[in-house]
Amino acid sequence: MHGRVWSCIVSTGQTWTVGVTGATGYAGGEVCRLLAGHPNLRLAGVHANSSAGRRLGELQPHLLPFADMVVAPSGAADLAGYDVVVLALPHGESAAIAAQLPADTLVIDCGADHRLNDPAAWTRWYGGEHAGWWPYGLPELPGQREQLATARRIAVPGCYPTSVTLALAPALAAGLVEPDVVVVAASGTSGAGKSAKPHLIGSEVMGSVSAYGVGGVHRHTPEMIQNLSQAAGAAVSVSFTPTLVPMSRGILATCSAKLTPGTDTQAARAAYAKTYADEPFVHLLPEGQWPTTAQVLGANTVALQVAVDADAGRLVVVAAVDNLTKGTGGAALQCANLALGLPETTGLPLVGVAP
Amino acid sequence: MHGRVWSCIVSTGQTWTVGVTGATGYAGGEVCRLLAGHPNLRLAGVHANSSAGRRLGELQPHLLPFADMVVAPSGAADLAGYDVVVLALPHGESAAIAAQLPADTLVIDCGADHRLNDPAAWTRWYGGEHAGWWPYGLPELPGQREQLATARRIAVPGCYPTSVTLALAPALAAGLVEPDVVVVAASGTSGAGKSAKPHLIGSEVMGSVSAYGVGGVHRHTPEMIQNLSQAAGAAVSVSFTPTLVPMSRGILATCSAKLTPGTDTQAARAAYAKTYADEPFVHLLPEGQWPTTAQVLGANTVALQVAVDADAGRLVVVAAVDNLTKGTGGAALQCANLALGLPETTGLPLVGVAP
Amino acid sequence: MHGRVWSCIVSTGQTWTVGVTGATGYAGGEVCRLLAGHPNLRLAGVHANSSAGRRLGELQPHLLPFADMVVAPSGAADLAGYDVVVLALPHGESAAIAAQLPADTLVIDCGADHRLNDPAAWTRWYGGEHAGWWPYGLPELPGQREQLATARRIAVPGCYPTSVTLALAPALAAGLVEPDVVVVAASGTSGAGKSAKPHLIGSEVMGSVSAYGVGGVHRHTPEMIQNLSQAAGAAVSVSFTPTLVPMSRGILATCSAKLTPGTDTQAARAAYAKTYADEPFVHLLPEGQWPTTAQVLGANTVALQVAVDADAGRLVVVAAVDNLTKGTGGAALQCANLALGLPETTGLPLVGVAP
Amino acid sequence: MHGRVWSCIVSTGQTWTVGVTGATGYAGGEVCRLLAGHPNLRLAGVHANSSAGRRLGELQPHLLPFADMVVAPSGAADLAGYDVVVLALPHGESAAIAAQLPADTLVIDCGADHRLNDPAAWTRWYGGEHAGWWPYGLPELPGQREQLATARRIAVPGCYPTSVTLALAPALAAGLVEPDVVVVAASGTSGAGKSAKPHLIGSEVMGSVSAYGVGGVHRHTPEMIQNLSQAAGAAVSVSFTPTLVPMSRGILATCSAKLTPGTDTQAARAAYAKTYADEPFVHLLPEGQWPTTAQVLGANTVALQVAVDADAGRLVVVAAVDNLTKGTGGAALQCANLALGLPETTGLPLVGVAP
Repeated sequence: MHGRVWSCIVSTGQTWTVGVTGATGYAGGEVCRLLAGHPNLRLAGVHANSSAGRRLGELQPHLLPFADMVVAPSGAADLAGYDVVVLALPHGESAAIAAQLPADTLVIDCGADHRLNDPAAWTRWYGGEHAGWWPYGLPELPGQREQLATARRIAVPGCYPTSVTLALAPALAAGLVEPDVVVVAASGTSGAGKSAKPHLIGSEVMGSVSAYGVGGVHRHTPEMIQNLSQAAGAAVSVSFTPTLVPMSRGILATCSAKLTPGTDTQAARAAYAKTYADEPFVHLLPEGQWPTTAQVLGANTVALQVAVDADAGRLVVVAAVDNLTKGTGGAALQCANLALGLPETTGLPLVGVAP
Repeated sequence: MHGRVWSCIVSTGQTWTVGVTGATGYAGGEVCRLLAGHPNLRLAGVHANSSAGRRLGELQPHLLPFADMVVAPSGAADLAGYDVVVLALPHGESAAIAAQLPADTLVIDCGADHRLNDPAAWTRWYGGEHAGWWPYGLPELPGQREQLATARRIAVPGCYPTSVTLALAPALAAGLVEPDVVVVAASGTSGAGKSAKPHLIGSEVMGSVSAYGVGGVHRHTPEMIQNLSQAAGAAVSVSFTPTLVPMSRGILATCSAKLTPGTDTQAARAAYAKTYADEPFVHLLPEGQWPTTAQVLGANTVALQVAVDADAGRLVVVAAVDNLTKGTGGAALQCANLALGLPETTGLPLVGVAP
Repeated sequence: MHGRVWSCIVSTGQTWTVGVTGATGYAGGEVCRLLAGHPNLRLAGVHANSSAGRRLGELQPHLLPFADMVVAPSGAADLAGYDVVVLALPHGESAAIAAQLPADTLVIDCGADHRLNDPAAWTRWYGGEHAGWWPYGLPELPGQREQLATARRIAVPGCYPTSVTLALAPALAAGLVEPDVVVVAASGTSGAGKSAKPHLIGSEVMGSVSAYGVGGVHRHTPEMIQNLSQAAGAAVSVSFTPTLVPMSRGILATCSAKLTPGTDTQAARAAYAKTYADEPFVHLLPEGQWPTTAQVLGANTVALQVAVDADAGRLVVVAAVDNLTKGTGGAALQCANLALGLPETTGLPLVGVAP
Repeated sequence: MHGRVWSCIVSTGQTWTVGVTGATGYAGGEVCRLLAGHPNLRLAGVHANSSAGRRLGELQPHLLPFADMVVAPSGAADLAGYDVVVLALPHGESAAIAAQLPADTLVIDCGADHRLNDPAAWTRWYGGEHAGWWPYGLPELPGQREQLATARRIAVPGCYPTSVTLALAPALAAGLVEPDVVVVAASGTSGAGKSAKPHLIGSEVMGSVSAYGVGGVHRHTPEMIQNLSQAAGAAVSVSFTPTLVPMSRGILATCSAKLTPGTDTQAARAAYAKTYADEPFVHLLPEGQWPTTAQVLGANTVALQVAVDADAGRLVVVAAVDNLTKGTGGAALQCANLALGLPETTGLPLVGVAP
C-alpha cells in the first residue's frame, strides 16, 4: 500500500468532492464506505476531532481503499473547499460548523441538531438552545423530495425514527389506526456508537438482549412524535422502547396501534402498497413474508410488512432497516443525490449482504 | 469413557428416579442438564421417538456425564417404573402416554397439551379435542404453590407465557393498568426447537432479527390471555408479537399497558416488590437497572423492571428469562420439588452463566 | 412490488447477459448480489434444481431488486442464450452442463469439478472420473491473469484454497520457508451451504466453535497442495484443519511453516509487498495491524499480515477473506471481467461492510 | 431485594468461608458463580480495587443471589479472616497480598504471578522480578494432585495453557510426536477481560474473527513450553497463535506436531484413553465426534479428540474448554477441593450449558 486509492467505479458525468467529518466513527465510516461505490461523489477528505494525524486505515480497517488517507482536524476552516460536507458528529457540534461554511456548500448533518421543528422539544430532550430546523432528509414523506432538491442544508433523520416513521405514517395518514402507538425496536450495537463503554463490550452483548431507555426517555421519541403527528394531522402519542440485540447492524421495529372501525388486512395492505408504489427503497413484502434485518444489511432499503390482529384490535407493522445505511449514511447520500440533481438511487446498494 | 457416570452431587436424603422422554430435544436436554446438579433426583432413563438405540452423547454432546446412556423408545410401557416422568414431546403426544402411567407417578409435561383450561381455546389454537387441564406449573401465581404440592400431573407453562405472566400479573391484579396489553418479545433460537429448518440455520439467524407469528397468531397467546385474565379478574386483550434474535437462549419480553388514573412509579414498584418479596426466583431489579437475558442464562430466575411513561400514559414492564430453564426445564424441576416435598429451590441454579 | 427491477447502476458501454444456476444457494445468491452493482453485467435469469417456479424473493429475501424473478430449471437447455453462465452447483454437475453450452459462452464454475489438474487427485478426493481441468480463477497467481483473459471456461477456486494460497505462495516462491505447512482456518457457517443440517442450526453454532474435517480429510486440501506446490516448484505438504465459528461469512486462515535460514521479518515483508504491489484486491497490512474478517466482509478483498517467530522458527501468515465474495462470487465476477476485457475491478466492492 | 441471599445448596459437613478479590471482573465473577453451587464453600466477601463501596449487583448482574453484597477494598488487611482467599487480579498484584496472609490460609491465585518456574522466563515475558513459584493447579498432570492436596498457595494455570497442555502432554509423554508443536487457538472475548477497549466492543467483535499476539509474543507461550517440556522430558518448541472469535466464552485449541515413526491412530487414541481414564473432567470423545466449545460452556470439563494425518505426517489434537470455568474459576475450586480434602468434583458443573 503506497498511497494507492483503488476504485471499482468508472466516473461518468460530473463529480463532486465530499469531505466527511466524524469519519472515524460508525456513521462517518458508513458514508465513506458508500462513497467508494458512488460514481459521482469522491471522498476528498476525512476529518475527526480526536484522531487527527492518524492513518484512516488504523481506525477504519475496512476502508481499505482509503487506508492511507490521513485524518485531518474537524474545524470549520478544515472543511472549507468541498462541494459537499457530511457532518457525523455528536449532537451540539453541527450548527457552529455549518454557519461558517458557504451557503452554497451542500451540508448534510447526520446528527440530531436540526431534526426537530420545535425549539421547546429540542430544549426538553437535548438541553440548551435549538440550533434551528433544516429540511428533513426523509424523501419518502409527502412533499419532502421536492424540498430536498433545492436544499443546501439537510438534517438526516435518526435511525429509529426512519424505521418507525416509514412503518406507521401510511396507516396514520389514512386514518386506519388511532393516533396512539406502541413501538418496541431491536437495534444492533453500532447504534450506540464506537465509544468503548463497559456494557457495550462484546462479552456483555453477545448472547444477550437488553432493554434501555425504557419509559419514554429515548431522545428519538420526539422525532417520531413530530413525524407521525405530521402524517396523522393530529398529535400522536408514542410509547417507545428500544432494545439492544447481539448483532452489529440493523433495526427491527415492531409498531402497533388500535384499529379504527372498518380497517381490515386488505385496506391496510392497500394503503401501504399505494404509498410506497414508486419508492425505490421501500419494499412492502408479499403476504406471508416477514422482514429480517439481514435482508437489508448494508443496503439503503426498508422491508415492511403489516398484519391486522382482529382479536386484539390492533394493526401491527414491522420494519427492518440497517441503522447505518438507510438509517444514516445511505440516507445522507440519497439526500445528496436529490440535492445535486442526480438520480436518487445513484451509487446506493439495493441488495442486502446476506447471509 | 467406559460407561462412567460422574457426578458433582452428594445425594442426601431420599432419591427419586426420573425418566425423560424427548431427551434428545432442547427441552428434554435441559431437564437432563439440571438433573445432573440435583441432589435428590437421578436421571434413570432417556427416551425419544426417533433416536432410540443411539448413545445420548451423539445427540446431546454437552451431557458428558450421561454420554454413554442409550436412548430408549418413548412408548408408555417404556416409561413405566420411574418415580417421576418428564414429557418433553410435541403437543398432542402427552395425554395418551400419561393415561397409561400409574396415577401416583409424578408426570410433568413440558408440552402444551394440558396448559389451557378452556377446551374451546384448545380446539381453536391447536386443533382437535382438548386432552384436559392439569395443574399449571407456575408456582409464583397466587394459590398455585399449594395446588402443585399435591399434584401428580403438572403442565409446565410455555416460555413466553412465563415471562409475560410474571411481568404483567402484578399490575393487572393491582388495577394499575387497563386490561389491554401489548407484548413484543425477543427470543433466542432454541425456542424454535432442534429441527433443522432452512430459516433457522446459523447463516440465516446470525446477524439478523426477524419477526414471526405476527398479528396475534402465535399459540402462546391464549395461554397469556388465560393467565392475565385470571390475574385481572376480567378479560384481558393481548397483542403479542414474537421476534427471533441471534442468540441461542433467552427471552426478553417488553410489555406495556395504559395506566389507570393515579398509577405512578412508586405505586408500580410497590406492587411488584410486594408480589415477589418472598419469591426465590423472581427479582425486581433496583431502579435504574434493566434486565438482560445474559443475567438469567441457564438459571431458573426472572429479572424484572418497571417504568411509568407519563407522556404516553403507559406502564412498561421488561422481563428476562431463559426459555429453556425457568421457561421450561427449570420450571419442571421447580414443580417436581414442590410435588415431592423438597425445598422449592433444590438443585436449581440461581446464578446466570455470564458473560 | 409489481415486477419492478430497480438498479443503482447506470450502464455504460457494452452489456452482457448473465444466467446464474444454483441461484437459490449462497454462492449463487452472492453472484446475484454482486451483479446488482455491476455496470456491464445484467442478471438475466436465475435457475435452480429444486425450486423452479418459485419467486426468487421467497428464497433470497435480500435480493430485493430481483425478488419478482421466477426461478427457472437448471438444465443445459435452460441455460442457453446467455452471454455468461455462472454455475453454482454441487460438485459433479457442472461438466455435463458445460459440455452442452456453446464454446464461446463464458462459463464460470463456482464448484469443484474443474479445479484440480490431476485426475488421480480428483478420483481420490471426490470419487468418479475427473471432468477435466479448466483455467484456474485466481488471477493473483503468476501468469494466471493472461490465461484467464482468453478463457471461456473458468474454475473458481475453493474459498479455503483462495485464502491459503494467497497467504503462503509468496513465501514458498521466495524460498523463505520449508515446503511443509500447517493451516488452521476459521470459517463462517455460510461455507457449509444453505442446506438445513442439525449441526448447522443457529442454536448449535451460536456461542460455539468446533473443528471438523480434522486430520487431512477436507476436500480443499489437494487444491492447496496443487497451488502451493506450483508456487514452491516442489511438492508441499499441507496439514489443514478447518473450524466453524459463530458468524455467517468470512475465513481467517492462520498459516505457518518452518523458516529457512536467513529469513527475517524484513525479508518476509519485502516478499509479500513485492508480490502484491499491483494487486487491487490483496492488501498487506501495515506492521502491527492484524487481519479481521469484518474488514473484508462483502468485499472482494484479502487482508494479509506476516510475522516471524524466531523462537519457534516459523513464519506465520494470517489472511482474511469473505468466503462468499473473494472466496466465490466476487472471484467469479473478477474472472468474468478479465475474460470480457473489462477492467478487473469493475463492479466489485473494495470496502468491507463493517462494523 | 432486601438483603436476601438465596441458595439452592443444602450444606452438608464442614463449611469454609471464601473471600474473592477481583470479584467484579470476569474471572472473579466466575468464582462467585460457582461458589453459589458449592455445598462446602461459602462466598463470605467480595473485594475489588476500583469499585469498593458499590453493590455487587450493579457490576455483576448475573450474580443475583449476591446482588446486595457490597464490594470491599482489596488490600491484604481486607482479606484477612477468610479460610480461603481467591485472587483474581492483574499480574503483579498477587505476591504482595499473599505474603501478608497467614501461612495456613488457602490462597489461590487466578493470575499469572506464580505459574512459571523459571525466574528468567518470568522476567522476559512479564518484566520485573519473579515473585516465586507456587504449586501449579492442573491436577491432571502426573503427580500434581498429590502436591495440591497439601498446598496452601496454588497458582491456577492460564486458560490457553490448560487447553494446550491437556491436549498435547499425553502425546509428548508417550513419544508419539516430535517436541515441536503448532497451536492455533480460538478464544471467546471474555479471555480479554472486562475492560472496555475499542477493539473489544460488540460492534467490532460480532461477525468477525481476528488474530492477535501473532509470532510467538503471547504471554501464555512460556507456560505452555514449561508444561509441555516437563511432559516430554525435553525442551519443546511451541508456535502459538491466538485468535478472537465472536462468542463470550470458550477456547478451541487446534494443536499439531510431527508424528514419530510408528505412531498411528490406534496408538494415539490408546495413549489419550489411558492418560485420562480416571479423570473426571477430561473427556476423550468417541471416534468421529469433534469437540465444540458449547459442550463445555460453563462446565469444568475438557473435550478432546485426536486424529492422525498420515499424508501430512502430523498428529492433530483438538481441545475445547471454557476459559472462565476449567480455564480459570472452575480450576480454582477444583484445586480448593483438593487442598481442603473434599472430593475433587464437589460443586463443579460437569454438564455444559447448551444449546
